Amino acid sequence: MLKPPVPQVLISEVGPRDGLQSVKTTMPTDYKKRWITALYDAGLREIEVASFVPAKLLPQMADAAEVVRHALTLPGLTVMALVPNLLGAQAALAAGVHKLTMPVSASAAHSLANVRKTREDMVEEVRAIAGLRREIAPQVSLEAGISTAFGCTLQGEVPEDEVIRLAVQCVAAGADESGLSDTVGYANPAQVRRLFRRLRAELGEQAGAAHMHNTRGLGLANCLAAYEEGVRTFDASLGGLGGCPHAPGASGNVVTEDLVFMFEAMGVATGVNLDQLMAARVPLIAGLPGEPVYGMTPEAGLPKGFVQGAPRV
Amino acid sequence: MLKPPVPQVLISEVGPRDGLQSVKTTMPTDYKKRWITALYDAGLREIEVASFVPAKLLPQMADAAEVVRHALTLPGLTVMALVPNLLGAQAALAAGVHKLTMPVSASAAHSLANVRKTREDMVEEVRAIAGLRREIAPQVSLEAGISTAFGCTLQGEVPEDEVIRLAVQCVAAGADESGLSDTVGYANPAQVRRLFRRLRAELGEQAGAAHMHNTRGLGLANCLAAYEEGVRTFDASLGGLGGCPHAPGASGNVVTEDLVFMFEAMGVATGVNLDQLMAARVPLIAGLPGEPVYGMTPEAGLPKGFVQGAPRV
Repeated sequence: MLKPPVPQVLISEVGPRDGLQSVKTTMPTDYKKRWITALYDAGLREIEVASFVPAKLLPQMADAAEVVRHALTLPGLTVMALVPNLLGAQAALAAGVHKLTMPVSASAAHSLANVRKTREDMVEEVRAIAGLRREIAPQVSLEAGISTAFGCTLQGEVPEDEVIRLAVQCVAAGADESGLSDTVGYANPAQVRRLFRRLRAELGEQAGAAHMHNTRGLGLANCLAAYEEGVRTFDASLGGLGGCPHAPGASGNVVTEDLVFMFEAMGVATGVNLDQLMAARVPLIAGLPGEPVYGMTPEAGLPKGFVQGAPRV
Repeated sequence: MLKPPVPQVLISEVGPRDGLQSVKTTMPTDYKKRWITALYDAGLREIEVASFVPAKLLPQMADAAEVVRHALTLPGLTVMALVPNLLGAQAALAAGVHKLTMPVSASAAHSLANVRKTREDMVEEVRAIAGLRREIAPQVSLEAGISTAFGCTLQGEVPEDEVIRLAVQCVAAGADESGLSDTVGYANPAQVRRLFRRLRAELGEQAGAAHMHNTRGLGLANCLAAYEEGVRTFDASLGGLGGCPHAPGASGNVVTEDLVFMFEAMGVATGVNLDQLMAARVPLIAGLPGEPVYGMTPEAGLPKGFVQGAPRV
């Protein structure tokens, strides 16, 4: 048994939030807890466990506080929740989360359609949340996730200058970091390199995670491009939950299993044990009967003779 | 209408050979011709159209000479065929192909299991084919495709020194170039970079194509890594034909549609028109009823506002 190496990248699992809020079925709370524990047991140390939104809008997330309470029992886990506004942040902070993530759309059209607010309004919302956090929970971190950063199904192209400006504004408004999300799977590796290079030039260590989608099959290539630009935190969803990658317009999150396999095969330590990660699919599948679950590596299996953490020749 | 830019990469379509020989159904000859014409119409200028092997071993390829004859009517197309040995090369040259590709396995175990020859025997076969070519068809080019170059389902790891040595031996034996194939989908981007860097250091312009598989979802990431090392020829298969990517042990060729989308989105001209490439799926699907056909970009569609060949911002 090899001693696991110090992780060189952080895989931030978003399935329990991003995945579960995208499927029609509501996973029973006990399954959510089992699933989160299994993800933790596999070595994941940042999990987006819930979204603090009104239960009438997203009944799948009605148990958010209870799910957070469970996740907080897992030592060393960063318990993250999505909050769409100040009200959500109040509830999430009351529940005791370690990290808030706030989506801010770079596409003017998407922002209005999705949350009926302008991008400027959303920056002000970030400022309000940062103020609340400073006042009542200064140890909690706050991330802005710049969504539709690589394009938008409503307006098409999103000017790169606007993406970077918004990311900088969110940090100026009090977010600890701004990450970039390819919400609709439009990104390509050259664009990923350009945008993260600019983001890192502007924000340094406050440049946040890459949240890539596999809608057009480029998810891992885009993660690789981001890695090569110095990004070290990657969002992914177990089983690719969060939209069927074969359906038009679907979200198609990057599959955690495939992403971890890519990095581990490259010799980039993730801290995640691949066998246990595969085992974490069991409570996911049991808790969402009939829901399709994806992943090429789980289907194909690991290569013959593959030893995780073994030095590569 | 934008004038199509000069291609910066060559997409070498292997579906009519690699794809069709992997499925149980035999595509009728007329469909093969229609399909090859549709691929050509989309802008593909190198197509592996057939394999010259005994019809009793691969009945799907019994019409190889007739398929080559049809492909030769398409102006500017490099008509390529796979030949496993000297006999196959004689038949392919008699049929009039422009380019021969000869698979040589880097895995000792795979070579014996697959063709019942050692790697050294296969280098001698390359030498014999190169001799024949020189004698009767000096204008025809000859590529050695080093298979299992990134690992093998029989022996597991394949030492990188052995891969490079074999590639160099094939060129020394008279091949014009040696490419590297991830026959079983074991490659990762770091390994792809290492091996192609070494290959190009050893062989310069005689370093050949990257033939990547998507068995574990890393196909495009591996192509990206090869591109960044200077590789400019990429094998791919329309619809990912050549093994179901969801079945253990399947081949899972890189999907031409997704690969072309990745490069075009990056601003790397392929010479291939994406709309016409999608249209080339019609004769493929019609000629292989019931056979699964893959591709994320065809399922999701092109991004809103995406204009092929448009300058990227």
